Amino acid sequence: MSSVEPGSRVATVLCVGVAVLDEIFRVESFPAPHVKTRAREFMAITGGNAANAAIAIARLGGRVVFAGPFGGPAGADMIGDRILAGLAREGIDVSNCRRIDGPMSSISAISIDARGERAIVNYRDDRLAAARPDDPAALVADVDIVLADNRFPEFVLEVCAAARAKGLRIVLDADQPTRHTHALLTLCSHVVFSTEGLAATGASDDLAAGLRAVRRHTGSFLAVTNGGRDMLWLEDDAVRRLASFRVEAVDTLGAGDVFHGAFALALAEGREEAAAMRFAAAAAALKCTRFGGITGAPTRAEVEALLAGA
Amino acid sequence: MSSVEPGSRVATVLCVGVAVLDEIFRVESFPAPHVKTRAREFMAITGGNAANAAIAIARLGGRVVFAGPFGGPAGADMIGDRILAGLAREGIDVSNCRRIDGPMSSISAISIDARGERAIVNYRDDRLAAARPDDPAALVADVDIVLADNRFPEFVLEVCAAARAKGLRIVLDADQPTRHTHALLTLCSHVVFSTEGLAATGASDDLAAGLRAVRRHTGSFLAVTNGGRDMLWLEDDAVRRLASFRVEAVDTLGAGDVFHGAFALALAEGREEAAAMRFAAAAAALKCTRFGGITGAPTRAEVEALLAGA
Repeated sequence: MSSVEPGSRVATVLCVGVAVLDEIFRVESFPAPHVKTRAREFMAITGGNAANAAIAIARLGGRVVFAGPFGGPAGADMIGDRILAGLAREGIDVSNCRRIDGPMSSISAISIDARGERAIVNYRDDRLAAARPDDPAALVADVDIVLADNRFPEFVLEVCAAARAKGLRIVLDADQPTRHTHALLTLCSHVVFSTEGLAATGASDDLAAGLRAVRRHTGSFLAVTNGGRDMLWLEDDAVRRLASFRVEAVDTLGAGDVFHGAFALALAEGREEAAAMRFAAAAAALKCTRFGGITGAPTRAEVEALLAGA
Repeated sequence: MSSVEPGSRVATVLCVGVAVLDEIFRVESFPAPHVKTRAREFMAITGGNAANAAIAIARLGGRVVFAGPFGGPAGADMIGDRILAGLAREGIDVSNCRRIDGPMSSISAISIDARGERAIVNYRDDRLAAARPDDPAALVADVDIVLADNRFPEFVLEVCAAARAKGLRIVLDADQPTRHTHALLTLCSHVVFSTEGLAATGASDDLAAGLRAVRRHTGSFLAVTNGGRDMLWLEDDAVRRLASFRVEAVDTLGAGDVFHGAFALALAEGREEAAAMRFAAAAAALKCTRFGGITGAPTRAEVEALLAGA
């Protein structure tokens, strides 16, 4: 961990939001009616924004606590059991995850065709969205930073409020707007949009105009990942660009989540925003060079090597 | 079980072939690139021709032994564990299933859209296809009839040879041709094609012509299920028709498998072919009235009621 000051302790990130079982079918072309498509490869892996980010941080050497709603109970909701076991295998603390008796946890079937395009179908039980954290203040008691997605806004909002009350910084992965989007935009110190999330929230297909539109509602740091192209962010209301790393992309699934996780970790370790974005962009680029969603998240040494060579 | 002679014992059917975990996503429209499709319903159920037929027979009151290759070992291949647990819950004897260490068992993701159309992607490890039964003679020792599909021909062929040596009747679910199709056509006493299977095997899109073409290679009973339309079969080289039962179809997934299972059971109970086909067509029609693949397979009483009312 060469960028951390000698003697500094390992940073702890609380990731809060959604976790999914991603079932990936590698196909020649997408499934269609009246044809039985045979996949040549299959993987069942962890997915979901916050859960993927948690794995990325763990791979980079950070300590991670994950919190979010799951189906249950254990033993009956085998999908939740598998996701939680997968997170625990990465060294992530999942003891604060809530199991809701009755619904099953979320699952996605993802077909990836010969050109690397994805077709995703996701099932999520609406009862999970009603879940709230047991003790938000306890959740944020011993962490250095919070990373939240906006897929379970009821759950996430209370955690973010507790973090804000404690003066913690909060990175928001701002995907498509949901309930409480406005409240989250103001609670969170750093908002990183997806292209689609910014287009919908900023009501503009022009990314720079979208960032400026959102600026009217919040003083938070604002940026947008841009699907592998140059990222944009606002600095003193000026739009800045971060050149992306040139890599041979074979699978972009989870790359945005790796960015968010690495960005939060880098901030927690004391980097300025511009340096944290560059660290995160390097991590996301490396992920794209490997098939298998979040299983392709890089180690700290790999990211440092790419940064040193760039 | 009103059609069975008083005092007759319950018939035992050996079902041999493929079992799959079918994950069903009920969607408005099919998943496509650049869109995240949200499913409004999800079910994980048993699928695969022979396994579905086994469940249909169990629901109809027959005794069922299932045999076929699965991934393994238990505990590592969670998909196989789930399929086998599901079959056992239906009262099916799965003690003769072979677990192959290394590969995982088969899985399908099936999207069903608002019009009831299906898009299927399936993953099957090629190593399963190389598996052979441990002791084919023991498998057929205590059964009244065998039902085989042709998805694992290496495994099924040896079981069919042992059944034939014992003089047992064998019903073949003849889907798309695979290896050993010709050998299976001659070993099996009753061959029931899918429309696609007959078109490929009989080299004709005309079902009657296809049946006559196959007749040149085998003296077995030959029929074709016809996707809910009138079925055809050969009787003394004359093409006969069986009118289908009129039902409001909401889900045809597994209906063909219900037909094969019910047909084999009815033959084992002593019905003639024409009566067995009518019994099977009633069972398949009832299945189509219920969503959820093979979970919609009917009971004996339901089939008898439909037959009595028709």
